[in-house]
Amino acid sequence: MNLHTYFRSSASFRVRIVLNLKNQAYQAIPVHMLRDGGEQHSPAYRAINPLGLVPALETDEGPVLTQSIAICEFLEETYPEPRLLPADRFERAWVRSLCNVIACDIHPINNLRVLKYLKTELGHSEEEKTAWYRHWIVTGLEAIEKMIGDRAGQYCLGDSITLADAFLVPQVWNALRFECPLDRFPTIATVYENAMALEAVKLAQPSAQPDAE
Amino acid sequence: MNLHTYFRSSASFRVRIVLNLKNQAYQAIPVHMLRDGGEQHSPAYRAINPLGLVPALETDEGPVLTQSIAICEFLEETYPEPRLLPADRFERAWVRSLCNVIACDIHPINNLRVLKYLKTELGHSEEEKTAWYRHWIVTGLEAIEKMIGDRAGQYCLGDSITLADAFLVPQVWNALRFECPLDRFPTIATVYENAMALEAVKLAQPSAQPDAE
Repeated sequence: MNLHTYFRSSASFRVRIVLNLKNQAYQAIPVHMLRDGGEQHSPAYRAINPLGLVPALETDEGPVLTQSIAICEFLEETYPEPRLLPADRFERAWVRSLCNVIACDIHPINNLRVLKYLKTELGHSEEEKTAWYRHWIVTGLEAIEKMIGDRAGQYCLGDSITLADAFLVPQVWNALRFECPLDRFPTIATVYENAMALEAVKLAQPSAQPDAE
Repeated sequence: MNLHTYFRSSASFRVRIVLNLKNQAYQAIPVHMLRDGGEQHSPAYRAINPLGLVPALETDEGPVLTQSIAICEFLEETYPEPRLLPADRFERAWVRSLCNVIACDIHPINNLRVLKYLKTELGHSEEEKTAWYRHWIVTGLEAIEKMIGDRAGQYCLGDSITLADAFLVPQVWNALRFECPLDRFPTIATVYENAMALEAVKLAQPSAQPDAE
């Protein structure tokens, strides 16, 4: 499989974690999101993924897969072991809900293109951009801390790693990068530490990528 | 089932469509997102959904379900007929990807709370807010028009209604509300019209809700 990825892309990071947890080898094809106005917008890349976003996954069997949630669901269906969605449908809904808090309520608002719009179209300063970033991350992490407070064990849902962890880790990694302290989120901090200790997660982190800077 | 909903909430609209398509009766419990600083933030509502967002679905069997994607996946698993995710796993990934373009790439950036932040925290005018809104909607609809261009029939994926339509309709409804013309998106316009002709969709639209204004 070929994964079109950018080392710092949080959505790519999620998919890398899932591929590693499922022991699926893949070839990383870096797409530099800042070089030349963003390689994801190049005609060559748009021919692979017309959305002009990473990640995109090329399998040996069918059309290119896009959008991290859809890719992770596909990987869960195609490589069921180890399972990353619980067997119980209420628990499964809970895990998906947590993924969505990250993938819908936090990440898109702090995405590169949105920050760029704030700066270039609306003329905001670095400080205002950072305040924006932190505001949405803190709002989201508060919600997650509440959600996992009484359900977390080693990981978000008890002691089994799930898609929720694969989504949480990259978001926390981003938060730390923007120097958002985790003191108010002790459960999140513990889960993050436990997940980051796993080889599959460690190998998926930005600094371990071939295109890391 | 009790669905906590706001007539204009696009995420609630998605779930209402899915419940209707699956012939599942539910009780709508309106949560007024503008009254008194937003009823979704009230302690009473937060006791039901700590995320302070709509929709939230209370079933008779288990804990409250949150986040529209997670709720729709739950409904698909619990009430498999009529199926809203295709049997083929590549087609399923495609449908989910389209849902994610809407639920992750368009909607969150134009959400009420984000527009509010632009106005109150960053001091932007109505014009700037509207320009922001239209920018993200047009970017997203361009991507969708490309995606469905050669796959759509009556609906996004051929002639069977899927989750993709349940997500697209509310987004287009929003676009029209903000007077974004659909001329450049002929496939989207056709799919929207066909889906809106269905009784299940018509009954789910904002103007048909008990809390409609």
